[in-house]
Amino acid sequence: MKQQSGKKIALGLLGGTGYGAAELLKFLTQHPEIDVVSVVSSSQAGELLNEYHRGLKGFYEGLRFSESLDPAAFEGYPEKLIIAALPHGKSAEAIFQITQQAEFKQFKLIDLSGDFRLQNTEAVAAHYPDSLKVGELKAKFVYGLTEKNREQIKKARYIANPGCLASAAALALLPLMEPAFKARIVIDAKTGSSGAGRGLQESFHHPFRHSNLNAYKILEHRHEPEIREALGDVGHQRLNTMFVPHVLPISRGILLTAYLQLPNKSSLSELQERYQSFYSSSPFVRLRSQAVDLNDVVGSNFCDISLHLRGPDLVVCSSLDNLVKGMAGQAIQNINLLCGLEETLGIWSPPLGLA
Amino acid sequence: MKQQSGKKIALGLLGGTGYGAAELLKFLTQHPEIDVVSVVSSSQAGELLNEYHRGLKGFYEGLRFSESLDPAAFEGYPEKLIIAALPHGKSAEAIFQITQQAEFKQFKLIDLSGDFRLQNTEAVAAHYPDSLKVGELKAKFVYGLTEKNREQIKKARYIANPGCLASAAALALLPLMEPAFKARIVIDAKTGSSGAGRGLQESFHHPFRHSNLNAYKILEHRHEPEIREALGDVGHQRLNTMFVPHVLPISRGILLTAYLQLPNKSSLSELQERYQSFYSSSPFVRLRSQAVDLNDVVGSNFCDISLHLRGPDLVVCSSLDNLVKGMAGQAIQNINLLCGLEETLGIWSPPLGLA
Amino acid sequence: MKQQSGKKIALGLLGGTGYGAAELLKFLTQHPEIDVVSVVSSSQAGELLNEYHRGLKGFYEGLRFSESLDPAAFEGYPEKLIIAALPHGKSAEAIFQITQQAEFKQFKLIDLSGDFRLQNTEAVAAHYPDSLKVGELKAKFVYGLTEKNREQIKKARYIANPGCLASAAALALLPLMEPAFKARIVIDAKTGSSGAGRGLQESFHHPFRHSNLNAYKILEHRHEPEIREALGDVGHQRLNTMFVPHVLPISRGILLTAYLQLPNKSSLSELQERYQSFYSSSPFVRLRSQAVDLNDVVGSNFCDISLHLRGPDLVVCSSLDNLVKGMAGQAIQNINLLCGLEETLGIWSPPLGLA
Amino acid sequence: MKQQSGKKIALGLLGGTGYGAAELLKFLTQHPEIDVVSVVSSSQAGELLNEYHRGLKGFYEGLRFSESLDPAAFEGYPEKLIIAALPHGKSAEAIFQITQQAEFKQFKLIDLSGDFRLQNTEAVAAHYPDSLKVGELKAKFVYGLTEKNREQIKKARYIANPGCLASAAALALLPLMEPAFKARIVIDAKTGSSGAGRGLQESFHHPFRHSNLNAYKILEHRHEPEIREALGDVGHQRLNTMFVPHVLPISRGILLTAYLQLPNKSSLSELQERYQSFYSSSPFVRLRSQAVDLNDVVGSNFCDISLHLRGPDLVVCSSLDNLVKGMAGQAIQNINLLCGLEETLGIWSPPLGLA
Repeated sequence: MKQQSGKKIALGLLGGTGYGAAELLKFLTQHPEIDVVSVVSSSQAGELLNEYHRGLKGFYEGLRFSESLDPAAFEGYPEKLIIAALPHGKSAEAIFQITQQAEFKQFKLIDLSGDFRLQNTEAVAAHYPDSLKVGELKAKFVYGLTEKNREQIKKARYIANPGCLASAAALALLPLMEPAFKARIVIDAKTGSSGAGRGLQESFHHPFRHSNLNAYKILEHRHEPEIREALGDVGHQRLNTMFVPHVLPISRGILLTAYLQLPNKSSLSELQERYQSFYSSSPFVRLRSQAVDLNDVVGSNFCDISLHLRGPDLVVCSSLDNLVKGMAGQAIQNINLLCGLEETLGIWSPPLGLA
Repeated sequence: MKQQSGKKIALGLLGGTGYGAAELLKFLTQHPEIDVVSVVSSSQAGELLNEYHRGLKGFYEGLRFSESLDPAAFEGYPEKLIIAALPHGKSAEAIFQITQQAEFKQFKLIDLSGDFRLQNTEAVAAHYPDSLKVGELKAKFVYGLTEKNREQIKKARYIANPGCLASAAALALLPLMEPAFKARIVIDAKTGSSGAGRGLQESFHHPFRHSNLNAYKILEHRHEPEIREALGDVGHQRLNTMFVPHVLPISRGILLTAYLQLPNKSSLSELQERYQSFYSSSPFVRLRSQAVDLNDVVGSNFCDISLHLRGPDLVVCSSLDNLVKGMAGQAIQNINLLCGLEETLGIWSPPLGLA
Repeated sequence: MKQQSGKKIALGLLGGTGYGAAELLKFLTQHPEIDVVSVVSSSQAGELLNEYHRGLKGFYEGLRFSESLDPAAFEGYPEKLIIAALPHGKSAEAIFQITQQAEFKQFKLIDLSGDFRLQNTEAVAAHYPDSLKVGELKAKFVYGLTEKNREQIKKARYIANPGCLASAAALALLPLMEPAFKARIVIDAKTGSSGAGRGLQESFHHPFRHSNLNAYKILEHRHEPEIREALGDVGHQRLNTMFVPHVLPISRGILLTAYLQLPNKSSLSELQERYQSFYSSSPFVRLRSQAVDLNDVVGSNFCDISLHLRGPDLVVCSSLDNLVKGMAGQAIQNINLLCGLEETLGIWSPPLGLA
Repeated sequence: MKQQSGKKIALGLLGGTGYGAAELLKFLTQHPEIDVVSVVSSSQAGELLNEYHRGLKGFYEGLRFSESLDPAAFEGYPEKLIIAALPHGKSAEAIFQITQQAEFKQFKLIDLSGDFRLQNTEAVAAHYPDSLKVGELKAKFVYGLTEKNREQIKKARYIANPGCLASAAALALLPLMEPAFKARIVIDAKTGSSGAGRGLQESFHHPFRHSNLNAYKILEHRHEPEIREALGDVGHQRLNTMFVPHVLPISRGILLTAYLQLPNKSSLSELQERYQSFYSSSPFVRLRSQAVDLNDVVGSNFCDISLHLRGPDLVVCSSLDNLVKGMAGQAIQNINLLCGLEETLGIWSPPLGLA
């Protein structure tokens, strides 16, 4: 029994160098029930965590990246949990191996990659072929869009944390998805550059990106099937979506504009009530009377939503921080549920303000 | 006969302090056939032009803002032309007065405001009520989207220069507008902050705007009726549009994403040929095989267009510099046509590159 | 006895709409011992706090701006404290009036303005003439640079919170200020646009500022005398400073580069040890082995410092968030000391990361 | 005799893919006397120039990158000129080889790298060791700071184009460099990210750089010896400089702040007259009465300078576009002089305005 902090949860991190890991480590400094006990990075093994993540100087004193998860580090904690913050494909493989090892078999686990998100076999084959190799493990994952699957998450052991763009789209549209809803939906997303990750790429070289804007993976982005599934259309038959993401010349934040035509006449206040009611138990979704923006969410775990109606034409805007509600924050939300804690613990804080 | 430069055109500017005026004055330093002979600003009258527009130091030496246009300054030039760069409403009034004065009756004129753009009476009444006061003058204006109305512009005297967002939308969609086209079109525009002009506003205060993004005038923007008219739907009956503009945290550039479903099966290469053919005489429209971006157009008079097809789903992206092709550059394009010059004269230059 | 939260401190805020107030309110949501009980704003009186500060939706539910401080709101708390977040001049006047009222006489108070910072009479007269009107009240203030005056602050009642640029400069240079130090020091500061506050100004209009940079108040900035005093030269005789601030096209953060020549030979490691030792009890000052940057501090209360030596030439770089360590964060640091709490309480959190 | 454009100068470019090359190619579209006849890139050989430099679509139609310079392409032009836009080290080697070939022996040449800029042997050895291998070729180069060496450039054949930071520093300080001037000078430079070139680097990854700022190569930058030499101190003995550059979160522009103490009493107007007189034949240097900024120069070949005096303390600010006056624009200025043309030909244009 090594544990002495009195905290409830021991957390190990697979892949400790990317932006998602950095954000997670940042938020976890504020969580009263989680100790980060082991952080794996093959490329940085041996280095001090807070020399690599320079902003963390003063936190995690003495903790070093390791080659692999150390089971001993988890001893004595009532809850043992692993977060995989690895690239798609690599994640499926690493998780498969971990779950084969006796020491880790009972651990809970959250995967930040896309490997375990989709159910539709064609979509999985097209976008995450590596996850097909892990067999029945895949079926054990619950899709971790907290506001949709809260009750299942509480009872789950393995969570596939949602994609950032998919989170913004699903939260914007879920309250409209009654069984009969069949409309065509256009989803235009704008995302900060951190969404592309830490790897160097020409189109993310600062001089090129500084005042630039462009659409990418037009009608081909892997979050489009995820959005359809998150909206309940696993067969990819009911919904007719067109999804185009754009990269903004800022680092953080997603703002998404969804366009649809309502099948039945509805007033703005009726729609607002429907949303309010749908999210009445979801403290991180805030319905706005005015158009959402990024300043109000960046740095926080909030997703803001606004509705705009003209006759049958409905525009829904949503905004969130791709690294928080779109990744690390939602992961902590899910940890809280997995471990029977208050959903908001450690992540109930306002946005940065002016970014 | 005062004129000694040998240039063909004397140009007077009504409203010399805004961003549109600044951009016009900048480009006109490179035009071989235009002398700027008079620049009116009631607020800055008497001040040196290039002390107010600091970047122009070294150009327009000795030229001062004046209280009103001086007819004598135009003497000796074969072509006399006025550009109105005034706010909506003010422009209609000032132009009405100018055209009542004998000295200016024969002058050609380009209005950068929206006052004379629309034909649909309801839309005019809703968005530009002041222009209703000018009576039959309104009917004398040709809508100055060069690529659409080139031949009419050559024979016109008064031009209503198009709006920046409307230019980007119309150029993106015009080649699709055969008589039968009735589809629903979603137009999602992203624009730089300079589009809002020089006047101070809270939502354009730098600390607030720096990393922010938001939609505005959702389904209510006055460029939406202009887009419909530019696409040939003056009755506002045929097209079913949803138009939402967003403000980017950069100063220049518009990138626009249009979503529609083709009524008839078509291949990408057929569509590209249709666009290529439609714009074969339009040197400033460049069809791109890859997604357009802002770096390729900012600082130039180009409008870039790219097409993206998935089954019947078509996405059209267009990009332009809101102050150039969206305003000052297109005005010079129109001056060239009005005065029988080569359309590209003085504006045939590449973008800035990295902005 | 109204208080029921069990927290120790009741805090009232004079001037609740500016950036400093917003930042303070944001951080105070995380403070375990402070209740914000009254927020004064004459312009917004009656409005909900979290409708004006939109990012705070979900926090401070029901709290409205009021016309004046309500003494009843402070009842039942062991500690009663006022923060003045008003413009220079207005602050001196408001504080003077407050301290004349019997109900508030025993309250502790922190002023974020510059009115009570300087001691040198000439400098006060030149930069903060209004503070001369408040008579002996001025002498009761302790200059709140925590790392310099920690012990005095613990015993004080009134604190003049330091300026953001002065904090960055003083923290960079304090360890060098032995009695004998007489060198000439060049201080080149670069600051984000939020430092200029919420009021609209032409040079902070987004299109103008987006990619711009300029020096301002060159050799005339009121933080230059504050820097000299913070470094112990109240007579303004010993130090020979040249101070120039520049505005960056970002919203948050100060990076400062100080240049001097050491009077005596010293090695880099000797200097680093001197700094380490000087700040050994100051958890928010982090000495860096590599050049500091803004990412490592923005959003946090840290001030990072790096030293760079070439022969006798020494460059010291420091960085901090102007709204946190440069304002609201340092104010909370001082509240903690004033009220006998742990200095880091409620502000011990990492930077945002990528801003 | 292939040449048919009637232009005077055939220009070949060694290294056609970097930012400097792109900027040169952009400006050369506006030059009435230069044909770009050959552009060498080993990595892109065979590709269309304007598909690689996408912004140039519509210009240089049909021109492809080649493996090596084609002498035949230069035939028929009265002036034959090569520009080397290669990395330091590689440039010295490539130029040495070219000048050994009979076909190119008589060509004029401008090197954009640092290889041939310095005279001080120690500094050359420290910063540009490869240029020591080229023997006496080095002595044939004239340092191409146009405003300093205009008359020598007119008579030269080989030009070492100055560094961007060194240009900003030298232009700011040259008028003060009378023989007796011996003061200590602090030079604090701030530069856009494009100065680091097109090669991907972690510290220029957009998410990291977006709102960041940091000093780099503190007291170790190779432009410091170049500055001293440009100011006439080839022995590196007379001037006592401290030079620190900082990277801004924008792509273009250098703003530099120099601090010194005047040895003799002087008034601001005397100093301004001295500068005005020194630059009376230099149209691209503009003396400003107010503090310079980047908006006034970015996109243009101007260098703006402002002077700020307080007693003996003098601050000189200068600003320029690192890719124009700091590289491609100054190269064209030098081409004009080398070939007996008007110095301003093809580069006399205002800044972009709002960037």
